[in-house]
Amino acid sequence: MEQKNKIKSWPEAAPRLIAVAAGREPADLVIRGGKWVNVHTREVLEGYDISVVEGRFAAVAPDLSDSIGPDTEVIEAEGRYMVPGLCDAHMHIESGMLTPAEFAAAVIPHGTTSMFTDPHEIANVLGLDGVRMMHDEALMQPVNIFTQMPSCAPSAPGLETTGFEITPEDVAEAMTWPGIIGLGEMMNFPGVINADPKMLAEIAATQNAHKTVGGHYASPDLGAPFRAYVAGGPADDHEGTCEADAIARVRNGMRSMMRLGSAWYDVETQITAVTEKGLDPRNFILCTDDCHSGTLVNDGHMNRVFRHAVECGADPLVALQMCTLNTATHFGLERELGSITPGRRADVILTSDLATLPVEQVIARGKTVAKAGKLLAECPHYDWPESARDTVHLGKALTGADFEITAPEGANTVTARVIGVVENQAPTKALTAELDVTDGLAQPDTAKDIAQIALVERHQGTGGVTNGFVSGFGYKGRMAMGSTVAHDSHHMIVVGTDREMMAACANALGEMGGGVSVWKDGEEIAAVPLPIAGLMSDDPAQTVAARAAKMVEAMGACGCTLNNAYMQHSLLALVVIPEIRISDLGLVDVTRFELTDLFE
Amino acid sequence: MEQKNKIKSWPEAAPRLIAVAAGREPADLVIRGGKWVNVHTREVLEGYDISVVEGRFAAVAPDLSDSIGPDTEVIEAEGRYMVPGLCDAHMHIESGMLTPAEFAAAVIPHGTTSMFTDPHEIANVLGLDGVRMMHDEALMQPVNIFTQMPSCAPSAPGLETTGFEITPEDVAEAMTWPGIIGLGEMMNFPGVINADPKMLAEIAATQNAHKTVGGHYASPDLGAPFRAYVAGGPADDHEGTCEADAIARVRNGMRSMMRLGSAWYDVETQITAVTEKGLDPRNFILCTDDCHSGTLVNDGHMNRVFRHAVECGADPLVALQMCTLNTATHFGLERELGSITPGRRADVILTSDLATLPVEQVIARGKTVAKAGKLLAECPHYDWPESARDTVHLGKALTGADFEITAPEGANTVTARVIGVVENQAPTKALTAELDVTDGLAQPDTAKDIAQIALVERHQGTGGVTNGFVSGFGYKGRMAMGSTVAHDSHHMIVVGTDREMMAACANALGEMGGGVSVWKDGEEIAAVPLPIAGLMSDDPAQTVAARAAKMVEAMGACGCTLNNAYMQHSLLALVVIPEIRISDLGLVDVTRFELTDLFE
Repeated sequence: MEQKNKIKSWPEAAPRLIAVAAGREPADLVIRGGKWVNVHTREVLEGYDISVVEGRFAAVAPDLSDSIGPDTEVIEAEGRYMVPGLCDAHMHIESGMLTPAEFAAAVIPHGTTSMFTDPHEIANVLGLDGVRMMHDEALMQPVNIFTQMPSCAPSAPGLETTGFEITPEDVAEAMTWPGIIGLGEMMNFPGVINADPKMLAEIAATQNAHKTVGGHYASPDLGAPFRAYVAGGPADDHEGTCEADAIARVRNGMRSMMRLGSAWYDVETQITAVTEKGLDPRNFILCTDDCHSGTLVNDGHMNRVFRHAVECGADPLVALQMCTLNTATHFGLERELGSITPGRRADVILTSDLATLPVEQVIARGKTVAKAGKLLAECPHYDWPESARDTVHLGKALTGADFEITAPEGANTVTARVIGVVENQAPTKALTAELDVTDGLAQPDTAKDIAQIALVERHQGTGGVTNGFVSGFGYKGRMAMGSTVAHDSHHMIVVGTDREMMAACANALGEMGGGVSVWKDGEEIAAVPLPIAGLMSDDPAQTVAARAAKMVEAMGACGCTLNNAYMQHSLLALVVIPEIRISDLGLVDVTRFELTDLFE
Repeated sequence: MEQKNKIKSWPEAAPRLIAVAAGREPADLVIRGGKWVNVHTREVLEGYDISVVEGRFAAVAPDLSDSIGPDTEVIEAEGRYMVPGLCDAHMHIESGMLTPAEFAAAVIPHGTTSMFTDPHEIANVLGLDGVRMMHDEALMQPVNIFTQMPSCAPSAPGLETTGFEITPEDVAEAMTWPGIIGLGEMMNFPGVINADPKMLAEIAATQNAHKTVGGHYASPDLGAPFRAYVAGGPADDHEGTCEADAIARVRNGMRSMMRLGSAWYDVETQITAVTEKGLDPRNFILCTDDCHSGTLVNDGHMNRVFRHAVECGADPLVALQMCTLNTATHFGLERELGSITPGRRADVILTSDLATLPVEQVIARGKTVAKAGKLLAECPHYDWPESARDTVHLGKALTGADFEITAPEGANTVTARVIGVVENQAPTKALTAELDVTDGLAQPDTAKDIAQIALVERHQGTGGVTNGFVSGFGYKGRMAMGSTVAHDSHHMIVVGTDREMMAACANALGEMGGGVSVWKDGEEIAAVPLPIAGLMSDDPAQTVAARAAKMVEAMGACGCTLNNAYMQHSLLALVVIPEIRISDLGLVDVTRFELTDLFE
């Protein structure tokens, strides 16, 4: 495929870079009269010009007017700071409900010019093919989107059925693709600690390709299990939540990735390792992990994380290193991007203030891609094939009968296990409740805030529905809320108080090709179509964010009062976080990692 | 070839590393109760144990006694500092007149466990085959010797004939060898600045292999030529001599390699960029470039450089980063060596003091290789083939007649161009002198300190001898001094006051297979046999250093008073340094880069 935004490699561009730097040929672009923010020396140098050719920096010097020819574009920095474009060291594009193109379009005006993305969600739905599609659209963009090959699909083998599985052979294959930068977060940390051959084979394939193994050690235990995980090879971790976590990671030769996502707040608690303990900052990195489209539209992206780090007491130059050079070095790209120095990709932000970082102009690969918050570049769309747009396979039209929960023969009431959603927390509580039985069916009970939950199989079209109960949303009246974003296997989760409405909701999602649908009193009152893999929209972020806001509103109209209602909903099938979840195989006791019965 | 000292890769070792780190299996080695010098965080942490298995660090923690089994070796650190083994970021093994094995044997007791070596000298004599031999012996050692593929042989095309030339195809081929870490110093900086396709092709082959391009920008001009050189791709430079040089390199995204060699003193003048200007130290690195065997025997190696850096005001932890982690990161090896963290090669120095760094015990790949200055490891010798041991091809027995300099027909005196050696400087002066003519031959004149110099062709056995005059050694009486170390093409340089003695000296070197020979009054009074490529001895450093000392003494006995007499001698054919030199093609005017006549 011809890549519109392909950039020549440094050696390919070298003859012209040299000619421009030597003053023998004019540059394509000269940025004139700015403050050179040098992340190698950690200095701000006033009164510098930058020349660019072939999308790469040719030279930086006090006066490059010799490089201005009749066709040279000149941008006047007017004394502003010239800052390297920002890097997001670990993130999932799917979290924005956007395709890579639309995600890029949303974050470029915020100054993000490099992203290290783990398409873990689509890997569960479409396997290696899905990863390749994300990878290919990523490479079409005017900014740098690198792909981390997902490592853990399924995340809980034996407890769920994903659309596809990722194998060590897939990993080895992906390592040969041009945009693959490493292995995505190795979430199966018990697997590494126990030297699971499959996990070690994935790590080995990555290390043997001299690429970076992403980590994910989601445990507070910094003793032997942590040491065993580090010995297994992951080179970074973004799951730290306190200063001791960050310090332990860096002391052991990992890089600490501190995240500020839409719902992650792990910078303030960890950055004190640098700001207060005074550790060498080179191994600390900033990232977002997960950003909703609303955050991108309203709050920003890496500029938001940078600003937050400065508010937390970081020296702006150190914070900048944490989202430029440190990240580039981590991924073996310090000679490719992350600083304003010869040979690197010409990614620059012009800004008037180094602490608040207003992003006034963004230049990527030598072209102005955004100005004053407005996108000025085209972010080309991949031609997503039918296989990616038709991923909701219900196998049949569902009816209320598919959501019936048959009580034990002759029972008038039942004691059911109930998934208890906990406000502001990812773990659930394993509750039990006495529920009435009518016509032989166990009934939800809005008075007790107990709704039905169904996991609807949508990958193989088996027609399978796993039914159970959930508490905590506060739903009242006749309603249903369904989503094909259902971490990590991304079947369909439908929560509702009424079986007919749940069926209507599921069928609507099937027709829509996936997304989110909210029903009340027999009507669909909100929908977020996510036609690509049932995870992403190829509409712009503003559109998706508006739909998502309306969806949250609709959940409220059904009685829901939770802070992160949609996120709570979409995590109910995440069978790696305690205490109790639902999967296509049944109700899962995540304290013991085994299936359990609905009724006691 | 079976490698005795081969170490398993991290992924190969991972199952055992994990098992030991998890406490499930005993370690091969536990170092107990030391201060963990952490170069990632820049901290000293008291009371730590280190466990090692498969030659790699498994874990570092306050108490690893659980990892001690019946077969586990235990080393008591007794509260001493546990420091990563030292790295020499750029050096030429041949400068020590030693083979890689004997060089390793000499420096291991000084705590050097990783070397980045450019076998540039042997490349001129034996081409790619010679590089491969050095590379292969390097990989046999118990410490880490990486090879930088030489880039510039010949260093001055058209002005000299080397034994072999290095081509871009050679570079591409070498990049596939296991021990090649990058391209050796790109000395042809005018070539890069002028976008010479051959030089750019060598750089491209290296960058495309994701390896490091070594630099060598030997000019004080930090303007357009410097910028053009940087734009060409070299990633480091060790030719800086002042603070401004170091700062310019780092600001432009190169790493500044500051060297303290036997005759290089470039640390004190540059390290102020860190110690006084306060620049981020991560891009500053220490190296030796060239060390004579005497320096290795009497003064040390990287421990000498480290100590010197501390004496120059560097924080010991920062200086340590400059010869451990910074170096490893530069070569893309930060997950392989350079710190005491899980997965890395278990290279450790035990020392009682972090400023003077007494090297009390050296552990490489988990084995004690030196203790109290004594080597305890075997450094295996490569089976050097006859082609490497028989490189002095004179083509015939030389006689006094080969050194006759015929004056123009009928002249009684001549005005000759004379190479003027300048004390303590590498550049020579282009002098002229009136010389007597006897029997039609121009005569040297010891009263005026003018001796004869001859460049004897020794690669092709052409029998060719280029004759000229040299001044500055102070030689008196009947003498000759010859050497097959004759940068960069390494023919044979003979300097003498007597033609018969010059012939005897040249013939002696021919029989010896190369080296250095000093003759006085008809007798050889000193010799340093360098049978391998005429550049290196496979005797121990002590032996070679003693011979070299005797050789310097012998030069003194012939009247020489120069400080670095041997070095001055061996550089007289280095036709890239002004003003005037000698080559197999004639006398070279190095201010104009062209051949010139002996007589005005």
